[in-house]
Amino acid sequence: MDKIKVGILGSTGSVGQRYVNMLKDHPWFEVRALSASSASVGKKYREASKWVLDVDMPTSAAEMSVIAADGNALRKEGVELVFSALPSDVAKVVEKEIVDGGFTVVADTSAHRMDADVPLLIPEVNSQHLEALTKQRQKKKGIIVTGPNCTTIGLAMSLKPIQQEYGLRRVLVSTMQALSGAGFFGVPSMAIVDNLIPYIRNEEEKVASELLKILGDYHGEFKNSNIKVGASCHRVAVLDGHTEAVFLETSRAASPEDVASSMKAFKGEPQILKLPSAPTVPIIVRGEPDRPQPRLDRLSGTPERAKGMATVVGRIRREEALENGIKYIVLSHNTIRGAAGNAILIAELLKAKGMI
Amino acid sequence: MDKIKVGILGSTGSVGQRYVNMLKDHPWFEVRALSASSASVGKKYREASKWVLDVDMPTSAAEMSVIAADGNALRKEGVELVFSALPSDVAKVVEKEIVDGGFTVVADTSAHRMDADVPLLIPEVNSQHLEALTKQRQKKKGIIVTGPNCTTIGLAMSLKPIQQEYGLRRVLVSTMQALSGAGFFGVPSMAIVDNLIPYIRNEEEKVASELLKILGDYHGEFKNSNIKVGASCHRVAVLDGHTEAVFLETSRAASPEDVASSMKAFKGEPQILKLPSAPTVPIIVRGEPDRPQPRLDRLSGTPERAKGMATVVGRIRREEALENGIKYIVLSHNTIRGAAGNAILIAELLKAKGMI
Amino acid sequence: MDKIKVGILGSTGSVGQRYVNMLKDHPWFEVRALSASSASVGKKYREASKWVLDVDMPTSAAEMSVIAADGNALRKEGVELVFSALPSDVAKVVEKEIVDGGFTVVADTSAHRMDADVPLLIPEVNSQHLEALTKQRQKKKGIIVTGPNCTTIGLAMSLKPIQQEYGLRRVLVSTMQALSGAGFFGVPSMAIVDNLIPYIRNEEEKVASELLKILGDYHGEFKNSNIKVGASCHRVAVLDGHTEAVFLETSRAASPEDVASSMKAFKGEPQILKLPSAPTVPIIVRGEPDRPQPRLDRLSGTPERAKGMATVVGRIRREEALENGIKYIVLSHNTIRGAAGNAILIAELLKAKGMI
Amino acid sequence: MDKIKVGILGSTGSVGQRYVNMLKDHPWFEVRALSASSASVGKKYREASKWVLDVDMPTSAAEMSVIAADGNALRKEGVELVFSALPSDVAKVVEKEIVDGGFTVVADTSAHRMDADVPLLIPEVNSQHLEALTKQRQKKKGIIVTGPNCTTIGLAMSLKPIQQEYGLRRVLVSTMQALSGAGFFGVPSMAIVDNLIPYIRNEEEKVASELLKILGDYHGEFKNSNIKVGASCHRVAVLDGHTEAVFLETSRAASPEDVASSMKAFKGEPQILKLPSAPTVPIIVRGEPDRPQPRLDRLSGTPERAKGMATVVGRIRREEALENGIKYIVLSHNTIRGAAGNAILIAELLKAKGMI
Repeated sequence: MDKIKVGILGSTGSVGQRYVNMLKDHPWFEVRALSASSASVGKKYREASKWVLDVDMPTSAAEMSVIAADGNALRKEGVELVFSALPSDVAKVVEKEIVDGGFTVVADTSAHRMDADVPLLIPEVNSQHLEALTKQRQKKKGIIVTGPNCTTIGLAMSLKPIQQEYGLRRVLVSTMQALSGAGFFGVPSMAIVDNLIPYIRNEEEKVASELLKILGDYHGEFKNSNIKVGASCHRVAVLDGHTEAVFLETSRAASPEDVASSMKAFKGEPQILKLPSAPTVPIIVRGEPDRPQPRLDRLSGTPERAKGMATVVGRIRREEALENGIKYIVLSHNTIRGAAGNAILIAELLKAKGMI
Repeated sequence: MDKIKVGILGSTGSVGQRYVNMLKDHPWFEVRALSASSASVGKKYREASKWVLDVDMPTSAAEMSVIAADGNALRKEGVELVFSALPSDVAKVVEKEIVDGGFTVVADTSAHRMDADVPLLIPEVNSQHLEALTKQRQKKKGIIVTGPNCTTIGLAMSLKPIQQEYGLRRVLVSTMQALSGAGFFGVPSMAIVDNLIPYIRNEEEKVASELLKILGDYHGEFKNSNIKVGASCHRVAVLDGHTEAVFLETSRAASPEDVASSMKAFKGEPQILKLPSAPTVPIIVRGEPDRPQPRLDRLSGTPERAKGMATVVGRIRREEALENGIKYIVLSHNTIRGAAGNAILIAELLKAKGMI
Repeated sequence: MDKIKVGILGSTGSVGQRYVNMLKDHPWFEVRALSASSASVGKKYREASKWVLDVDMPTSAAEMSVIAADGNALRKEGVELVFSALPSDVAKVVEKEIVDGGFTVVADTSAHRMDADVPLLIPEVNSQHLEALTKQRQKKKGIIVTGPNCTTIGLAMSLKPIQQEYGLRRVLVSTMQALSGAGFFGVPSMAIVDNLIPYIRNEEEKVASELLKILGDYHGEFKNSNIKVGASCHRVAVLDGHTEAVFLETSRAASPEDVASSMKAFKGEPQILKLPSAPTVPIIVRGEPDRPQPRLDRLSGTPERAKGMATVVGRIRREEALENGIKYIVLSHNTIRGAAGNAILIAELLKAKGMI
Repeated sequence: MDKIKVGILGSTGSVGQRYVNMLKDHPWFEVRALSASSASVGKKYREASKWVLDVDMPTSAAEMSVIAADGNALRKEGVELVFSALPSDVAKVVEKEIVDGGFTVVADTSAHRMDADVPLLIPEVNSQHLEALTKQRQKKKGIIVTGPNCTTIGLAMSLKPIQQEYGLRRVLVSTMQALSGAGFFGVPSMAIVDNLIPYIRNEEEKVASELLKILGDYHGEFKNSNIKVGASCHRVAVLDGHTEAVFLETSRAASPEDVASSMKAFKGEPQILKLPSAPTVPIIVRGEPDRPQPRLDRLSGTPERAKGMATVVGRIRREEALENGIKYIVLSHNTIRGAAGNAILIAELLKAKGMI
């Protein structure tokens, strides 16, 4: 099988670097184009990118020349599929241009997540939303699928099996988010050593609105779920891995053991289709009293098992202060599953379903 | 006025050190006895105590000889009032012995907090609970008053004005607690650098049960409040200052501005009596979007203003996922207001009310 | 006595904020002008400055209108003395303009430190270098005195008494520098959590060249010391306080006890003149095996004693690998003694000696 | 080939866990016995060990029953080779007993490092010291080889090629050591957040004495090198990876480029013999101005390349303050190369040379 040629928009940032690293030996995709802002165009990728991962830059990428984020440049490299990790201020316009140019775009930017015909996708959770692409194809030359905010992904994944089996009435979540969520230069060390920041701009709103779309239906158009969702978002001194304390009310009574069982049994299309980046077990439920912990569990147990693509849940217990109340801790790697990894899994799903 | 002679049980631990430091120039109290475990008895305090505060050990304490935690030893030093920062395993027995010996004990240990005749006191919040001492005096030679867990204090303080003005139906709190709450040796650095621990033993239970007692009534006996309370407790890489994300439902509708006003206007007996350690403003409400932050706000603005004795609240906002829903962030210094400082304020209140 | 009216250039940065805070109740100086970059001019200081200290912004400063960094604006406010905390790229030109405008400038920027007629001053160490101002006055309308790099100050202070009593042949220093030395936004948290950075641009060169000027002579012109100096500079995850491991060779043999004695006995003009910001004891020598530590010792013991203005030395021991070898650890607060505090002490010295 | 059956003494500690993890799929060795203190004997390893690595416990180890650290118990499991990660207080006696029992012991404890007939081995650096085993065999039933302190290994590795090509006269090293070097519970978080500790008990002495033995000769007996060595050792808030700032004098002049070349060209017996755990390149020289950094470089580039077994050097530059002066930064993973990994490499070398 010939590999699909892909491009990465915003390839020099920290999420861009994750893409470069995760795609280096991908069985289906081959990176052919790395784009960045105009100051970097023409430079070698190794010069343009201040590499911040703890594994070396792939040598294949190091010597590639950075190109501009436009259709002509991408077309010249034979690119069909484009991953976007653009800064949010430029994503809105550029992603649209690329789609208009006939490309398939998978974006983890927020620009088009809430568009009326754009799926906001977690492959295990709402792959049926890809139906919306039918509508897109009628209007657009290319197509676009988006992935959610890094904070929404682990939460939505952990809620899906509960919603399916017991129904969800209310979800309150308090987050302890990793530094990498703000980008490499996002949080100054002076702001976070011996400290935390109990605020992340627009994050609480995103979690609520994205969750309702993801856990909602698509029948010709998107219909939000009617779960009541509230969030309080906070930054802590952790490099990678968003930890979230979830309080919820189910529609039908469920014990902590019921919830654990439904999570353990949960599988989505990526598992059924055995997609290359799919974790074997999408939700790992741990039984220790003090897990998951971001440093120990963000890679989901072992590099071999899930490489940061699984969601890890622990401390599932009753919450007496709510009716049919349950509380638990959920952890998800924010730049792997919460960004590049989810987007790559989306692309794999599109490919496996013959949509690209 | 002659100063009241006081003793400190468990004086070499990190809370014990806070007592020693906060009492060094106290206008009403004079430290005359420092007790510690048998291995330290007879040593100079400076030898027995591995001092961990960033201000020097008071020279007055440095040369005192450490004594045993028993009534005879305390009596020999003329002690009337005893602060207890004992480890929880020994507190239950030793505090009882000291009370039986005729002393007034103020304890921030958990041993006797839930006893049927023992006030669990935050002087601004429930000073009327001191009425329970009448019953104690009928049965005991001495008296004992306890202070709550460090996690409960800031929370209870911030809830009290809301309870008074609007009523409280439900409180869900997710904490991000400081390392010092576990004692100097409590959390290994390997466990917390680039990490958090989403679990603190017995903490969630303590927060719920203590809060109900504190916000409840006393009429001859304690009657718990009927607020529904749930907690999820987590340790983060912050030295001092517990930050808590609070979601709540009021009985009568209240806007964020209403809540802010009731907090700002709140005063308790310590403010009315102008107790030496009372913060002028017990609840400081900050308007910035990203405050309170533990490193910046745990000392409550300035050393001059509140020295870590005030509770700092910020980000008061509506929570649409709850009926009459409100959410906010509260911060309280866990070893000052949350332990030694609250106990000293209790002692000042006892003194000002003529109860010692 | 009327207070001297002072201005602060670069008042909104983190060193600028230290000036504002340290000068708020100064007995001799009164802040009358706060300058910042053109984007901030005309704004209230509280709007222009993202305040990052853990004590509140002085209310006197909060409502002042930020002005431009030029002589006319300063003159309008009656300013005589100007402290400069300008970014290095603008300092060179602007400081010169201000001096040409007839002001006295005290700068902790690097722009003019090595100028042939400009003293690079640590008041305790080389106050005799102020003689160079005589030459300056012949050529300039105003005068300028500079303070050294934050890394040089503690080192030079600790070396001076050794140089005086035993002579110095060689100094090798390895630093572990605090984050605030790079400014509030200087070091991203992603770069330093669970990490260190073994490099600080130009720092090793500055330490060597500045030390030789400071420990050198002035007789009509500056003559560098001939000590051999080498440095290796590193950034670690500490908020404030530069720690330095010093290896040295003395000219005449000295035991660790000799070195400790000379440090303890050391006094400079600020101590003799009892300048308001002078620490009573400029070099505090600690005897514990594991001190100084930045968090515990950067404020030099107690707020009352030295408020971060003293240098703290510990672990003085023999170094057998060098001839007449000695090694020790020195700690100095980099934004207090290492920047604003040293500059204020310089200004106090100028005033006390009748030079302003 | 049948695998050699090995036992691990002190298997539940953090170095013990590294052994268990590194040996799980070893081509030559098979873990058959896990020993721990008497309180753990008889328990399953998963119950006895609080697992702290970020990869899951190997399932093969999880269900093994922990045994006592004695020869009979080991013999019952068919063990021939024993790795010791015992606490230093018990290592001296127990390791001797095991050797006397006829086993081959490879120890990274300090107990027998300086014994007159015991090689202190870094396989790339001084494999010729294995000659001392001839003498051992004459006196002992078994044999013992030790590995150096974690701080010595990276330093010695980086110095060896310089010593070979240019000679070494003097070495001064200032370390910034990781938390894991003190064991999981060694450094309390309260001691190191926003702090560093400029002291590690006995470490400076160990570095000096071990280095002289390793870089010395063996001709019937060990003869120390006559290099002058001095160290200053410090603990910083880094999880894994010791960083060291080295100043040195060579016997013959060498430029930084010369030093870099000699390091890059360096190979030892493990590379020649292609031992399974040998890094292809034992010393990786990086050219960036700000590397090596522990978080980015402690795994030596990529998991594939060296898995923490290589030494990483950067910032090689002239030191003008010394004659023939050179300075550089060296980084080595303290619990992989600095402990378990070095011991495993020693065992591989023994096997490859037919010594077991």
